[in-house]
Amino acid sequence: MSVVLFSGGMDSTALLAVEVQEKDPVVAVSINYGQRHAKEIEAAAAITAHYNVEHVVVDLSVLQDVLRSALTGDMDVPDGHYAEQTMRQTVVPNRNMIMLSVAAGVASSRDTNRVVTAVHAGDHYIYPDCRPEFIEAVSAATRLGTATFGDVEVEAPFVHVTKTDICRIGAAADAPFRLSWSCYKGGSTHCGSCGTCYERREAFRDAGVMDPTVYVATPTYSVPEGVQ
Amino acid sequence: MSVVLFSGGMDSTALLAVEVQEKDPVVAVSINYGQRHAKEIEAAAAITAHYNVEHVVVDLSVLQDVLRSALTGDMDVPDGHYAEQTMRQTVVPNRNMIMLSVAAGVASSRDTNRVVTAVHAGDHYIYPDCRPEFIEAVSAATRLGTATFGDVEVEAPFVHVTKTDICRIGAAADAPFRLSWSCYKGGSTHCGSCGTCYERREAFRDAGVMDPTVYVATPTYSVPEGVQ
Repeated sequence: MSVVLFSGGMDSTALLAVEVQEKDPVVAVSINYGQRHAKEIEAAAAITAHYNVEHVVVDLSVLQDVLRSALTGDMDVPDGHYAEQTMRQTVVPNRNMIMLSVAAGVASSRDTNRVVTAVHAGDHYIYPDCRPEFIEAVSAATRLGTATFGDVEVEAPFVHVTKTDICRIGAAADAPFRLSWSCYKGGSTHCGSCGTCYERREAFRDAGVMDPTVYVATPTYSVPEGVQ
Repeated sequence: MSVVLFSGGMDSTALLAVEVQEKDPVVAVSINYGQRHAKEIEAAAAITAHYNVEHVVVDLSVLQDVLRSALTGDMDVPDGHYAEQTMRQTVVPNRNMIMLSVAAGVASSRDTNRVVTAVHAGDHYIYPDCRPEFIEAVSAATRLGTATFGDVEVEAPFVHVTKTDICRIGAAADAPFRLSWSCYKGGSTHCGSCGTCYERREAFRDAGVMDPTVYVATPTYSVPEGVQ
């Protein structure tokens, strides 16, 4: 059994699709950390229902009172390319470590030893807690912290995979991308303007996969200088 | 500035006393993870008020629905020596990693880079997430996960210190032990029978420090064979 850290976005939807194919049974854990895009949790519920997979939702929205970020507080979510410096505002401090440690607790409680997360190569530029060295370190800490209580490890199968290739992998595994949610702005339709909408659209386009998403706006961006 | 992970028990009270002396200002973070001994949170509030230190309480009691333990669920809290095998039931899976990752998020949000926890040598036998190798690993993961967002590190100054010596160190720093709370059973007075009450009493006795605690019962235990 595996515990999949599952946001309901397109990356973790692709991961769940692969996990359902390869590792049965699976428990999907969604963590609401007070983000504005709680629409993701609804998407996560629809996708786990699609797969008839157990869905554990953990409401940690109290964290928005103590953690500073444009995603959880009163700051405006910036528009623009995902990799721009303004996107630093969307960093929720230590978010992945908090989510992974809870998922590992769930894994230990269910006598399973594997937590998987869909962090990917495109997240590295801004988010330190999506980088390969962090994943290795957090897996080591988790294994030691749960020693004799499951020896839980953390895996990030997409950590060196681009979002475009995740889109291809997910499509090949029949991932229900139409049910997934990416927008950071929390409207009823994907805004099309925020960094994650831009990234989502770009991934479908570059992967040559049909994009089932309805976007409010269709902006054009240029990648800022110095961004890879 | 330092963030002190602060339960209101005697170990973190001693740690806070030392931190207030040496590192000013300090923020104390108490995390309610659904434990039965929420009395600790009241004790923590009284102690931070004593020191006029900011007290951040994070209610993660929703975790009791997803994490299995005698401390958070319906299981009975076992009596007996703290180091007995029955005490394994009191392990909340991955508890310290969850609490430390939240404390590190608070530290990053406040532009400070140091989280301290009062885990100590006596905790190693049963709790894997109190051992020196875990502390080192979780500090490495935290530093990487908060890289460029504070580079937060975790320190455990008591990790090689016995509870008896913590009692001596706290007494020397005028720690208000009378306000602290240890009992796992959640009554209005320390039960005197549970593992942590036994350990508390033993620490005061062995340290030669006056024990200000009122206990309901005065049991005598012998240390089980094989326990150090």
